Amino acid sequence: MGKSSTTSTIAELALRSQVAAREMALAETALKNDALKKAAAVLRDNVSAILGANQKDISAAEESGLASNLIERLTLNENRVMAMAGGLEKVVELPDPVGETLYKSDRPNGLTVEQIRVPLGVVAIIYESRPNVTSDSAGLCIKSGNAAFLRGSGSAINSNIAIEECLRDAIASAGLPEDAVLLVRDTSHESAAEFMQLRQYIDCLVPRGGPNLIASILENATVPYIIDGDGNCHVYVDSAADLDMAESVLVNAKTQRTSVCNAAESLVIHKDIAGEFLPRAVKSLEGVELVGDSQAREISSGIGEATDADFSTEYLDMKMSVKIVDSLKDAIDHINVNNSGHSEAIITADETAAAEFVRGVDSGSIVINASTRFIDGEELGFGAEIGISTQKLHARGPMGIKELTATKYVVHGNGQIRT
Amino acid sequence: MGKSSTTSTIAELALRSQVAAREMALAETALKNDALKKAAAVLRDNVSAILGANQKDISAAEESGLASNLIERLTLNENRVMAMAGGLEKVVELPDPVGETLYKSDRPNGLTVEQIRVPLGVVAIIYESRPNVTSDSAGLCIKSGNAAFLRGSGSAINSNIAIEECLRDAIASAGLPEDAVLLVRDTSHESAAEFMQLRQYIDCLVPRGGPNLIASILENATVPYIIDGDGNCHVYVDSAADLDMAESVLVNAKTQRTSVCNAAESLVIHKDIAGEFLPRAVKSLEGVELVGDSQAREISSGIGEATDADFSTEYLDMKMSVKIVDSLKDAIDHINVNNSGHSEAIITADETAAAEFVRGVDSGSIVINASTRFIDGEELGFGAEIGISTQKLHARGPMGIKELTATKYVVHGNGQIRT
Repeated sequence: MGKSSTTSTIAELALRSQVAAREMALAETALKNDALKKAAAVLRDNVSAILGANQKDISAAEESGLASNLIERLTLNENRVMAMAGGLEKVVELPDPVGETLYKSDRPNGLTVEQIRVPLGVVAIIYESRPNVTSDSAGLCIKSGNAAFLRGSGSAINSNIAIEECLRDAIASAGLPEDAVLLVRDTSHESAAEFMQLRQYIDCLVPRGGPNLIASILENATVPYIIDGDGNCHVYVDSAADLDMAESVLVNAKTQRTSVCNAAESLVIHKDIAGEFLPRAVKSLEGVELVGDSQAREISSGIGEATDADFSTEYLDMKMSVKIVDSLKDAIDHINVNNSGHSEAIITADETAAAEFVRGVDSGSIVINASTRFIDGEELGFGAEIGISTQKLHARGPMGIKELTATKYVVHGNGQIRT
Repeated sequence: MGKSSTTSTIAELALRSQVAAREMALAETALKNDALKKAAAVLRDNVSAILGANQKDISAAEESGLASNLIERLTLNENRVMAMAGGLEKVVELPDPVGETLYKSDRPNGLTVEQIRVPLGVVAIIYESRPNVTSDSAGLCIKSGNAAFLRGSGSAINSNIAIEECLRDAIASAGLPEDAVLLVRDTSHESAAEFMQLRQYIDCLVPRGGPNLIASILENATVPYIIDGDGNCHVYVDSAADLDMAESVLVNAKTQRTSVCNAAESLVIHKDIAGEFLPRAVKSLEGVELVGDSQAREISSGIGEATDADFSTEYLDMKMSVKIVDSLKDAIDHINVNNSGHSEAIITADETAAAEFVRGVDSGSIVINASTRFIDGEELGFGAEIGISTQKLHARGPMGIKELTATKYVVHGNGQIRT
């Protein structure tokens, strides 16, 4: 297994990650794909070792009284390990983004200018209980020529180490630097803060976790990062909506899976169709607790009173806020005040209204006449997803492998000097 | 002049900027161009008022004993104001980046996915003494549908106010929100720190200034930012270099203008040609203080001793460090340890060596057989430049108007739900 990362300081690990990143940046596509295929095979060959390590984590979690939903996230089984291996093989099929030309210009003085995609370098991932993130994010980093510098949670440390060691073995056997995947063993609170401040080494930090993790990044991080934040997603039912479609999309967006960031949390209805649509919505959303403004409560007695905070809350549960608006413009304004920049849908047969919604709503993804649940890297055709950015710089919305690259200008000349 | 920004708190100004940004995001290209043309005309009509305000700043600066080079940067004259107006008219000619489609995909379920360019929103610029930054950056923000939220230095406050008022008048007369350009009047140290932390309002902060400003951003900013940092630029003369070309490019990169970030600061020479090339370089760089490693000093007695710090220093002056390396690989390693990610040149007739340099050197721009002085938005064909990014996320290298945009996914369906 070569040198391990057991006893090193975090800065020492980060330096090793940076050295590996320089080598990974030069690796040919075939070599990276070979490492990914070998990694899938090693995971499959080591299912029982991985599940054994995972059992240690589960036992410790049960002893410490961890909540059952967190234990569920932590738990691996043979299918989940096979899915991790399969995920790595899917990354093999993705085109290698490195070297792609994004801009080209021949200058009057004979210089040729090209802008090409290059790896970011050290991509740091800080994540919570799910051990599959170790493998999933490492796979995307390897394919994009980066080094994955990983810091998972203490509750999953044995599982994460078992997976990391498999990946490192595979990478080394493919002739690439094993430090291209490196897991920080120290899972103390202090180590997380230190990790976020390794500005000299980390080129991009991607957090994968809940609001507390994001708050900690905003508070402590000095490295460049991409925020994968809340999804306070809206479904706006326009006056020109097909109400059958609106009902079906609404129910899907809210209830198909409530615990995910692209689930709808707030229903906004144009007043002209609220009297007809809202009672239908209340009925079809049976089991969902609805809280709304006074107009909504007047129309339907089954709706509780919404506070201002309700309209900006991501429930991730069978609960939804309801707002009646006087106009499309008011809908846009309401959404812009309350949304988190994730995904917002409009249901309308009016293309002009849809276009106004697209232009006016400040969000990463706008969906017209479909469920917000489609805002996901796989659904949008990226093959795999490293997260969903709710910020505007570098990446916005679902992030595929291209978002793990930077660019570089390459200027060719034959002796030109500036006068 | 409408409501002024004289007495408002910074957060109130930021909110006004955000409201204006929402309106600017919807503005048609023709309207934005009209505002830019009118702004150029108003600047020309108000030359004497602007120069009067500038004279106040100059007098105050002289009284306070400001360094003469800073007073020079602060000083406007009729030509400089005309150049500001001309700069706005050049921005009119740039293509509007808003709405450009970057990705399109038809999904098997009938959804169509588009990724389009949208304005960032509130673009904050914090800058030092040059008053032309007020006009130049406002012009690029207007064209890209953003609001420019400006915070210049106290030494230029009268000049900046005079220019801002001209721009606001012009924007209002074109029917766009005058708050699309908004200058913070409070130039206290505290206001700068507060400005950098308006996370609720500022979508992107672009600093334009020296190392102290950048250090303050890294220390204090909580808003997303793009760092326009040092340029510790290298010229590497390979063993396969045309030495006449190397000499000419080196002299140009070092001496054509020493005070700019794309000037060369460090010369790296392959040992095989050092004995022949270095004496020529020393001669042609007459007037430049050279400091080098022991091998360089052995070859040429005119070279002083370089410390480790010298190799990572951006002199911005007639001084240069010199390093002799055993191989191309050593040159790449030396540059990666010491550079600031700005621009690095290789002089070589060997295309394989050039390609290895391009892949191996971690920098925003690589120049092959030409001067580093070409790394500049205008020279690369972007028409105008908001700065040169030395970071990797979002923008890297010279930033044109496209770098002032974010993206948005737009997904069209006809009632699709996720199963």
